[in-house]
Amino acid sequence: MARYRHHLFICTNRRDDGRPCCADLGAEKAREYLKERCKALGIHGPGRVRINNAGCLDRCEEGPVLVIYPDGVWYTYVDQEDLDEIITRHLMRGEVVERLRLPD
Amino acid sequence: MARYRHHLFICTNRRDDGRPCCADLGAEKAREYLKERCKALGIHGPGRVRINNAGCLDRCEEGPVLVIYPDGVWYTYVDQEDLDEIITRHLMRGEVVERLRLPD
Repeated sequence: MARYRHHLFICTNRRDDGRPCCADLGAEKAREYLKERCKALGIHGPGRVRINNAGCLDRCEEGPVLVIYPDGVWYTYVDQEDLDEIITRHLMRGEVVERLRLPD
Repeated sequence: MARYRHHLFICTNRRDDGRPCCADLGAEKAREYLKERCKALGIHGPGRVRINNAGCLDRCEEGPVLVIYPDGVWYTYVDQEDLDEIITRHLMRGEVVERLRLPD
């Protein structure tokens, strides 16, 4: 069995060159929310879900972005409702949330 | 096709509570080496390999650690020779380097 059923990496990179970056779009707050929510739901930990911050995922213009492995599904998000849908549908049920999905 | 054939996340987390952490074991230098080497080899970029730092991967006692997705293979490493073997065998040929592999 894989160590994590879903290992989510959320870009929290901050750029200082004026280009758009996930950090300017609420990524750190989103990371905290995802982590706290998964813990509260009892789905965070080995065998289940892990939430990690990551450096620049190189999709700055499409941000904010996150990727879930081993699925290899990329998402963008705007608000808490989007994050809740990713948690409830993808992380809990293994469904892809097409409306938030980014192309590979 | 997946955005990255191999997406490598290397823990560069620093703990301040006295527990072991990847940052104390050369993780930042390893990240830089991996990235520079993959660029030099022409395997870094969409469709190929991406090297990213990540926050704590929660395997501090087994560190320093990295994980390669979508493969879901976890590694530890000690020196540049280990990193070269991960690059040459796993990232370039898709082979698992069993001597450095951590259990799931």
